Amino acid sequence: MAVDVVAVCGSLRRGSYNRMLLGSAIERAPDGLHVEELPFRGWPVYDGDLEAEAYPEAVGRAKERLARADGLLLVTPEYNYGVPGPLKNAFDWLSRPPRETPLIGKPVGTIGASTGWGGTERAQLVWLYSFRFLHMPSFNRREVHVSMAAEAFDESGRLTNELFLKDLDAYLAQFRDWLEGLKRARR
Amino acid sequence: MAVDVVAVCGSLRRGSYNRMLLGSAIERAPDGLHVEELPFRGWPVYDGDLEAEAYPEAVGRAKERLARADGLLLVTPEYNYGVPGPLKNAFDWLSRPPRETPLIGKPVGTIGASTGWGGTERAQLVWLYSFRFLHMPSFNRREVHVSMAAEAFDESGRLTNELFLKDLDAYLAQFRDWLEGLKRARR
Repeated sequence: MAVDVVAVCGSLRRGSYNRMLLGSAIERAPDGLHVEELPFRGWPVYDGDLEAEAYPEAVGRAKERLARADGLLLVTPEYNYGVPGPLKNAFDWLSRPPRETPLIGKPVGTIGASTGWGGTERAQLVWLYSFRFLHMPSFNRREVHVSMAAEAFDESGRLTNELFLKDLDAYLAQFRDWLEGLKRARR
Repeated sequence: MAVDVVAVCGSLRRGSYNRMLLGSAIERAPDGLHVEELPFRGWPVYDGDLEAEAYPEAVGRAKERLARADGLLLVTPEYNYGVPGPLKNAFDWLSRPPRETPLIGKPVGTIGASTGWGGTERAQLVWLYSFRFLHMPSFNRREVHVSMAAEAFDESGRLTNELFLKDLDAYLAQFRDWLEGLKRARR
């Protein structure tokens, strides 16, 4: 049974290490796991008035895509020891009406990369708060924290650090198995 | 399929509202859910030297009991906006060698009571950090935060506030269903 995952990469920057990490995850996804980016470029900063007056169509389409997915993968930078505003803004849009949010109960995992030592460890923990609010089962079996990211990727943007590759491959395989188990249980 | 849960109540105080909450949870556990207290009274404050020289037998017995359980329920006070030291100390002992810790991968839930408005909301979020480290699936579907606890229990220590009773009953029923699903998946 194949599982379908949508991934949201928290950085819009062209040279983003998190974007490179997502690219490597897509490329290395094992059999039975499909990983596809859910882009949020162009989504406005959340504003309740805007929501009431001109609901962004792109958000509606993303909610429909997310609703069909078996799981969500957040590829998260860490800003100021916390979750990054751009990714939280996208997540917050996805959590809003009109339709019931597809985030509720959606199985979720996080991975991330940073140029420092922590590899987004703190941001990944803070995400757990929001997952709890939305009753999202959180994948807690493996972790991927790509630290010192400037040395972890090659010039073409592929993850090359052996340790992190091992982490990523193990993460993807176990994330797939976990999602497959949840999908089976829902049937 | 019945599920067996051990519960650790974070407060040692005789008149503890969290102890009352645990009592009510035990009493109101629905069919198919057995809730039993795992006491930690008398466990020493963790000390690596003590651990090496005189490992507390009570901790070893608690680890064996926990290993047999289908799930863990933490009944947690909140101290200084965080997890309470006594309960964290018990949790830390349970996480230590000699044997592999039975906490790893153990499904877990939290409930709590406080005399203020928050009902241990903050402490319950901070617990998520440690659950992640130990690969513990966290029950995220329902929450129990008994606030203004001095008015929520009767003189005999039973939870009587109607709203919190509804929360607790729904929590226990869904916690049971969730644990049963996980147990079935392991077979």
